[in-house]
Amino acid sequence: MRVIFSPRHRLHATETVTIHGEAYAETPPRAERLLAAAQAAGLGPVTEPADHGLGPILAVHPADYVAFLRDGYPAGLPFRHAGPLVMADTFHTRHARRRPRHPWSQQGYYSFDIQAPLLAGTWEAAYWSAQCALTAADAVRAGAASAYALCRPPGHHALADQAGGFCYLNNAALAARHLQAGAAAARVAILDVDYHHGNGTQEIFYTDPSVLYVSLHGDPDEEYPFWWGGADEQGAGAGQGYNLNLPLPKGTDDARYLAALDRALAAIAAFQPAWLVLSLGLDIGAGDPSALGGGFAVTAAGFGQIGQRIAGLGRPTVIVQEGGYRLETLGENAAAVLRAFTG
Amino acid sequence: MRVIFSPRHRLHATETVTIHGEAYAETPPRAERLLAAAQAAGLGPVTEPADHGLGPILAVHPADYVAFLRDGYPAGLPFRHAGPLVMADTFHTRHARRRPRHPWSQQGYYSFDIQAPLLAGTWEAAYWSAQCALTAADAVRAGAASAYALCRPPGHHALADQAGGFCYLNNAALAARHLQAGAAAARVAILDVDYHHGNGTQEIFYTDPSVLYVSLHGDPDEEYPFWWGGADEQGAGAGQGYNLNLPLPKGTDDARYLAALDRALAAIAAFQPAWLVLSLGLDIGAGDPSALGGGFAVTAAGFGQIGQRIAGLGRPTVIVQEGGYRLETLGENAAAVLRAFTG
Repeated sequence: MRVIFSPRHRLHATETVTIHGEAYAETPPRAERLLAAAQAAGLGPVTEPADHGLGPILAVHPADYVAFLRDGYPAGLPFRHAGPLVMADTFHTRHARRRPRHPWSQQGYYSFDIQAPLLAGTWEAAYWSAQCALTAADAVRAGAASAYALCRPPGHHALADQAGGFCYLNNAALAARHLQAGAAAARVAILDVDYHHGNGTQEIFYTDPSVLYVSLHGDPDEEYPFWWGGADEQGAGAGQGYNLNLPLPKGTDDARYLAALDRALAAIAAFQPAWLVLSLGLDIGAGDPSALGGGFAVTAAGFGQIGQRIAGLGRPTVIVQEGGYRLETLGENAAAVLRAFTG
Repeated sequence: MRVIFSPRHRLHATETVTIHGEAYAETPPRAERLLAAAQAAGLGPVTEPADHGLGPILAVHPADYVAFLRDGYPAGLPFRHAGPLVMADTFHTRHARRRPRHPWSQQGYYSFDIQAPLLAGTWEAAYWSAQCALTAADAVRAGAASAYALCRPPGHHALADQAGGFCYLNNAALAARHLQAGAAAARVAILDVDYHHGNGTQEIFYTDPSVLYVSLHGDPDEEYPFWWGGADEQGAGAGQGYNLNLPLPKGTDDARYLAALDRALAAIAAFQPAWLVLSLGLDIGAGDPSALGGGFAVTAAGFGQIGQRIAGLGRPTVIVQEGGYRLETLGENAAAVLRAFTG
């Protein structure tokens, strides 16, 4: 299995970022741990991504949002809350009447929370993270059974035109659209096993029957991202019935998780996708610090089972790295999933 | 002129609050400076507010929002970003699909920015600030030509169900509704001279033809609150034509400000209100630190002129304190306006 990795992730240098006094959890050591684990597991060659340019990115994200991500840091610097990073402050909420032009307000228009600050190197890191996903999709489109895009920053919270939750460009959505490019009738299923609902991915494909989005995640009444992720969100318009949310309670263990996963896999099998994109978050693991007051309790053995059951679908699979913040077990748990695709 | 003041404002103890590393500008010394200036100017007796209970507050703000302001601090404490204050993190933006139940998400539902944190004493301070405005309205309703509610925290950014911009309860809106109580056909004009658009007040009365809202403020393409304040926002439904925004450019000086004020006063005179509520912000003064990259340049003499022209309307007036953050000139500028109502 090819592992696609770009050292440019380090340009999103979040090690010293704090938000409301709390350390930012999505830091460069995450990717380094995952890379070391992939290498130790002997998954296959580690290669840098090919540069696909902006074209495939603009197939998912509108040009004004991409311009904001690219230019927002220097534009925001002269204004308040600038310095090492540009942070959103005020947001385009339900009562907003207008869309302002001021640079400082753009981040609140193009974000749904304060967890996606712009640093000097954020755009370049996000761009190359997206290229990792696109390059992994190339490999699978060319016939590989699977490929692993070791993306950082992650992507599944990024909507078409809003950043949030450590995410800027939606790597999984980019991979799905890239798989479809040149074969528009082809169906893609996206399975999201990150602990947090992949609200961005859901929204991007919410009215699209060619992409089935299936997510297992912490109940949004108890967990971020709060504003999305209910079981009643099932798609709309032509996409009605092509969005499946399986919210799970705090404390979910291997057995409970695997039972829900079987339900997700049955829905995907029935959809008969040409390709699968796996949004691989590892924050369902026991003790992940991103969970609010305690999350799931999936073990390393559980991750192995998860990998085997997903691989058992037998679909060509692009594996896209999402969250996971417990450095001590991140690599081990990732390897447990990934090995199932090489066996 | 009675001055209504509650020392309980100090319970909103924001002296040590920082947001994205920047000191919070809306601090207790503001009110103390204003009180000292009112006393030095010999405006009239300083009295504490009467307690009107929640009834008049619930005439403007829905019960769920009031419950959030009252209970949000203890409810938020067990979750992240808690401690000395409870801060919003993720917001109910244009793409949100659901209203979550988790305590930590409530502040992002009931706020449009991160500039209205909840401290242990915020509710009590906001409650008594509102009572100051209601008590000043009592005095004017009982026949006084004017009364000064020395409110802290301020109110004009607070929407019916959203806090933001240092504001929690909309004191000016409460005063207007309290003036109307028992005389529902009575027309009230609200003139807002704060440097920032009073988005909350605008929105509360946006469809109501019995309350004319007129605001002079920094252009929202250049200035907070960004999402409201354009000249094209003129009311809706039955309230169409009863909202007048006069955005002004950076650098606006006395002459330019007074010319716009004359336009505002002509609109108010034509409306023939029974009462006037003056949202008195002092951040149009030269050098106010809240302005993004420089604001207006109104002088002490300009403030005197502003007071005289507004008093010249000859309407019974409830004066409600809003913003103003340059401690060195805050008292002097306030007194320059207020003296015009006693002379």
